[in-house]
Amino acid sequence: MKNSKLTLTAFDWVPDFAQGHVRDLRVRWALEEAGFPYEVEVMAQGAQRAPAHLRRQPFGQIPTLEIDGLSLFESGAILWRIAEADDALLPADIAARSRVLSWVFGALNSLEPPIGMLATLDLFIEDKDAAARIRPEVVRAVQGKLKRLAEALGPDPHIAGSFSVADILLTTVLRDVPDDLLAGFPSLQAYVERHTARPAFSAALEGQMRPFAENAARYEKAS
Amino acid sequence: MKNSKLTLTAFDWVPDFAQGHVRDLRVRWALEEAGFPYEVEVMAQGAQRAPAHLRRQPFGQIPTLEIDGLSLFESGAILWRIAEADDALLPADIAARSRVLSWVFGALNSLEPPIGMLATLDLFIEDKDAAARIRPEVVRAVQGKLKRLAEALGPDPHIAGSFSVADILLTTVLRDVPDDLLAGFPSLQAYVERHTARPAFSAALEGQMRPFAENAARYEKAS
Repeated sequence: MKNSKLTLTAFDWVPDFAQGHVRDLRVRWALEEAGFPYEVEVMAQGAQRAPAHLRRQPFGQIPTLEIDGLSLFESGAILWRIAEADDALLPADIAARSRVLSWVFGALNSLEPPIGMLATLDLFIEDKDAAARIRPEVVRAVQGKLKRLAEALGPDPHIAGSFSVADILLTTVLRDVPDDLLAGFPSLQAYVERHTARPAFSAALEGQMRPFAENAARYEKAS
Repeated sequence: MKNSKLTLTAFDWVPDFAQGHVRDLRVRWALEEAGFPYEVEVMAQGAQRAPAHLRRQPFGQIPTLEIDGLSLFESGAILWRIAEADDALLPADIAARSRVLSWVFGALNSLEPPIGMLATLDLFIEDKDAAARIRPEVVRAVQGKLKRLAEALGPDPHIAGSFSVADILLTTVLRDVPDDLLAGFPSLQAYVERHTARPAFSAALEGQMRPFAENAARYEKAS
């Protein structure tokens, strides 16, 4: 994959609350860690729903990653494919590999859903009063998951032995937990700080944010 | 993996609404399709929160699959591992394989979250009035995803060319959509019927349900 032509899709601008949290961040981070050179196709807002994009991403989302002309969608799928190509993100040892694989899905399918439900209540549900009434129940569900995660992590720096693709996914999922909630779990807060201090994360974040600043004036005038 | 010792965890009983929908179903289905013999460790309700189980499943959930003494958790991770070991579930061709990989994560990380949020509102949120007020907004989100899925499927019998592990995941996710909602998408309804008509699905369902009937009297007396 090091010698493949890689093209990632990303947005030219998103609203404030999403900046630094769009899922191409995960892919950029993995590519930066692996040292795989890549190009970015920066898409205008709205282009994600055009037929040409729906053919490569059926839900009209980003990111996609084209690898030598072959397109993948879903950040989890893309990260697994990148990880398979690089020992730095996925250990060769079968026991370690099983733990990483379990945590890749654990981050996306056990942790992210309640965290995403909380974000949906906070950002997208129009009936704000009903959302506020339900919120404490969802907060308790998120706290339950975070408690289990903190117990599983224990004193370790990474979730599955050495640094892996599972840490990239887990860190990006935990970054979407409201600050006051994550503050109840100091070891998870430290986990996020430890991983976002990696140079590859900074490069990924900077890459995602750059077009937003360039295009802000145009979108803010339009809205 | 055909010659490995495989041990799956499952429950001895669950409440009515969950019967036939517990996630060990996915694993049983994949193992039945692949023809891999397996044993089942049937766990009593409550045992999922015991330290011994939390060591192999950090969120206190089922299923886990032990493969020659090595334990995996998360149904998605387990299915991917089984699929990697069998051409019937994961084509060797790289383009087809990429499509399957994308849809594995698409099913679990793009489709399941809004469907799971709807199930949470319908089954678990205690403030029934607030849940009912939010429900229509979540229904619209699920419908939006199902519309995209129906467009991506088109007239094809399977989601990624030939039958694959992605169909197992997608079918089990769609089985959790309320009937009246799925009825709005006849091609998806037919997709679910087509895949649940497979003998391996029936064997998996029968395997999950068997202990529930045997243990019902004991649990219903206790509650």
